[in-house]
Amino acid sequence: MAMELDLNADIAESFGQWSMGDDDTVLKFASSANVACGFHAGDPKTIARACRAAVTAGVRIGAHAGYHDLRGFGRRALAVPPEHLRADLLYQLGAVNAVARGAGATIGYFKPHGALYRAVDQDALIARAVVDAVAAFDAGLVVLHRPGSLLLELAAQRGLATAGEIFAHRAYLPDGSLVPDGDPRAHISDPAQMIATALRLAEHGTLQAVDGTLVPSTAVSVRIQGDHAAAVSEALAAHGVKVRPFAR
Amino acid sequence: MAMELDLNADIAESFGQWSMGDDDTVLKFASSANVACGFHAGDPKTIARACRAAVTAGVRIGAHAGYHDLRGFGRRALAVPPEHLRADLLYQLGAVNAVARGAGATIGYFKPHGALYRAVDQDALIARAVVDAVAAFDAGLVVLHRPGSLLLELAAQRGLATAGEIFAHRAYLPDGSLVPDGDPRAHISDPAQMIATALRLAEHGTLQAVDGTLVPSTAVSVRIQGDHAAAVSEALAAHGVKVRPFAR
Amino acid sequence: MAMELDLNADIAESFGQWSMGDDDTVLKFASSANVACGFHAGDPKTIARACRAAVTAGVRIGAHAGYHDLRGFGRRALAVPPEHLRADLLYQLGAVNAVARGAGATIGYFKPHGALYRAVDQDALIARAVVDAVAAFDAGLVVLHRPGSLLLELAAQRGLATAGEIFAHRAYLPDGSLVPDGDPRAHISDPAQMIATALRLAEHGTLQAVDGTLVPSTAVSVRIQGDHAAAVSEALAAHGVKVRPFAR
Amino acid sequence: MAMELDLNADIAESFGQWSMGDDDTVLKFASSANVACGFHAGDPKTIARACRAAVTAGVRIGAHAGYHDLRGFGRRALAVPPEHLRADLLYQLGAVNAVARGAGATIGYFKPHGALYRAVDQDALIARAVVDAVAAFDAGLVVLHRPGSLLLELAAQRGLATAGEIFAHRAYLPDGSLVPDGDPRAHISDPAQMIATALRLAEHGTLQAVDGTLVPSTAVSVRIQGDHAAAVSEALAAHGVKVRPFAR
Repeated sequence: MAMELDLNADIAESFGQWSMGDDDTVLKFASSANVACGFHAGDPKTIARACRAAVTAGVRIGAHAGYHDLRGFGRRALAVPPEHLRADLLYQLGAVNAVARGAGATIGYFKPHGALYRAVDQDALIARAVVDAVAAFDAGLVVLHRPGSLLLELAAQRGLATAGEIFAHRAYLPDGSLVPDGDPRAHISDPAQMIATALRLAEHGTLQAVDGTLVPSTAVSVRIQGDHAAAVSEALAAHGVKVRPFAR
Repeated sequence: MAMELDLNADIAESFGQWSMGDDDTVLKFASSANVACGFHAGDPKTIARACRAAVTAGVRIGAHAGYHDLRGFGRRALAVPPEHLRADLLYQLGAVNAVARGAGATIGYFKPHGALYRAVDQDALIARAVVDAVAAFDAGLVVLHRPGSLLLELAAQRGLATAGEIFAHRAYLPDGSLVPDGDPRAHISDPAQMIATALRLAEHGTLQAVDGTLVPSTAVSVRIQGDHAAAVSEALAAHGVKVRPFAR
Repeated sequence: MAMELDLNADIAESFGQWSMGDDDTVLKFASSANVACGFHAGDPKTIARACRAAVTAGVRIGAHAGYHDLRGFGRRALAVPPEHLRADLLYQLGAVNAVARGAGATIGYFKPHGALYRAVDQDALIARAVVDAVAAFDAGLVVLHRPGSLLLELAAQRGLATAGEIFAHRAYLPDGSLVPDGDPRAHISDPAQMIATALRLAEHGTLQAVDGTLVPSTAVSVRIQGDHAAAVSEALAAHGVKVRPFAR
Repeated sequence: MAMELDLNADIAESFGQWSMGDDDTVLKFASSANVACGFHAGDPKTIARACRAAVTAGVRIGAHAGYHDLRGFGRRALAVPPEHLRADLLYQLGAVNAVARGAGATIGYFKPHGALYRAVDQDALIARAVVDAVAAFDAGLVVLHRPGSLLLELAAQRGLATAGEIFAHRAYLPDGSLVPDGDPRAHISDPAQMIATALRLAEHGTLQAVDGTLVPSTAVSVRIQGDHAAAVSEALAAHGVKVRPFAR
């Protein structure tokens, strides 16, 4: 059986006159595109352009939703009451899906962004609000997050499909959690290491922790960024790994 | 055959901690509720609450979309390029529809708000962008505006269903257009006149212009506000006019 | 020597078309007006109107600055890095002071709002950023907060003038801190109790804790709201207490 | 007497995580820095960083104020009532001046941005609101705009100092107005032409219109952008023209 891996990347992170990222380039290599929904990044015209580019590139679209905090890019912890968060997420899901529809696509998965990505792994009320919103919007959406996270656990309990991901540019602890942001080892900048991470997951289903330990991982997707997207993609191709969207 | 009339009213115009209008009261009398979409008024939790209230009251929901201008409540003319406006509207339509879905409803029609309401009657590029957005989102939506307006004309050409409305609190010229805002006769505050307007339309299909002229009108809906909603509704009932959503 | 007390109240909390509070009424009774700065509430035209009203009423103006979070009214905890917070506060202080200048006034004090009010009593880096901003803007401003708070301690160390306040509508623990929000005893709605609180402070310099204990308080100001402003003011007058701005 | 010219450039146009322009580079060549005020671009931390960079570079600071429209970068016409615009400008002037004060500077001039730049040359009510705001904030500020514009005329009538500017990257009609944006000749991209424009103004006090006509100009400043800042600056130096802030 052919080896497969999903590569997911963030798009539509520009805002108004401000550019961020290079959607067209990253869409050449990714199989899943996390579309910013306008709360932490992305405005409607940016989202529309990104969705058209994804459709042209044949890349599957997901909603990348976050806190309503443009100035902080959704990276600042914000104490949103769960009931309000549920409405915030329904709003974002519907908005991006409608703009995607205008480009001839629909969203296939949901991924939380920034500080919300962390919160759904720490606070069950927040995680539950997210699951509620996704289930209410479209119970066919896949929820993408860290394998074994609180969010994926609650999503699975609700009957939603889930998918695990790892970050090519981040280091992990043996328990599968991220080396915290403040730690000097947290961020990886060597493309060779990122490539090794993707290959190891695709070929062996393992993740190498920061201490060298090899741990099994159920992740089916690697999150890549523009600067190393081509290198990771080429290495996978050279090793016979097919890049394609994770299945439901 | 029983006489019928639709009464439409704006809801979800609160924002964050700020209240505006009394959704619960107006929903007792309206048959169509224009839900603010978050650009000129309404935030997701407000929209969610309003949609639940509309569902509880059995009132049909429409999307009331406007310019991205909270400070000006969408009433200030804003030069949005048509291509960006299309994306702005898809975003709002999808957002409100998703929040409505979370409350067990879907939107049935589209109505532009404020300065956009005026622009779609004056600028064909703007009107066309609106029609494009509605058609791309859901070709089954009805477009609600002034009978004979540029917007309704273009919507009909595109094959969209249209519905005409008049405002109970505004005076009209013999050609069916509004007495301009600056004119002292523009606004009507006497409930008796508003009631007469609604009855005249329901019973005779006519509109009385500010000069007394009676002109035929194809309007099927009267836009009401909280302060006169009950009075208009009761008068219609007393005259055997059934208040129900305009048909497709 | 005549007894004196400052009464402070929030103004300029409307936003765009949305009204909140009744600035004109509260300005009849307050001696210090906390002007919202546009981040959690207040837009420039609202601030301008409020400043003119304060000038007309002869009430001293202060800047009531908060987190950049209109949807949450600045009441949601937000993890703003201290260096960014310093800039956020300088921005708000200058903005409100300039609009006040346009109305013939200048600001005399600073008071944090909402979640920031709580954060400056818990996080020294946040409190220090606030002190930095106030000192950089105008070292002559008074800092208004809970007597003995972390903020006032750091402000005094920096050589800034400080003033303590208590809330007429909140209950206190014997250590001078607020009964937490979730506690059923936290909020006071009986005007007689609010009046007693103000009189007790003015006449005896004491605060009655929720358990009945009388504790000395260095507070020089009582924060009032529109619904009980008149009652508190009248009671103070009847007892010969003069309402006037706290001194530097 | 030595020839002199002011070069003005926009800074602080980044927003949150989004970068725009290269403030450090442009500050090497400009003598006046137009600081975005947060309404069309710039957030407090961006403004703080830009002001510190300007202070380090010894460049004089001005407030570059615009409409409240981040998504449109202040370039979309917006119908702000003059009374509200006055408050919007006071707010921006005070905000930027306070952040500048935190960096050890104060603003020396005012320049409108984008769609407001155009409106103040077309609508006397708008221009007057701008003049009112500047005069109310600091009657010592210089107003920078097109020589002979409606704004500069009204500013001078009010007793404000004025300064005229031309754009290095735009073509002009013989009457001193810009070749309109839609015209293919409107934008200049050849650095040699930009250099010639600056030299001609500095050495001869003239401007060459798009038809070749040489017209006298009272402009004392040339607006430059990052991509041609160095070239223009070097050419001026080579011709013995000293780059320094325009005088009051």
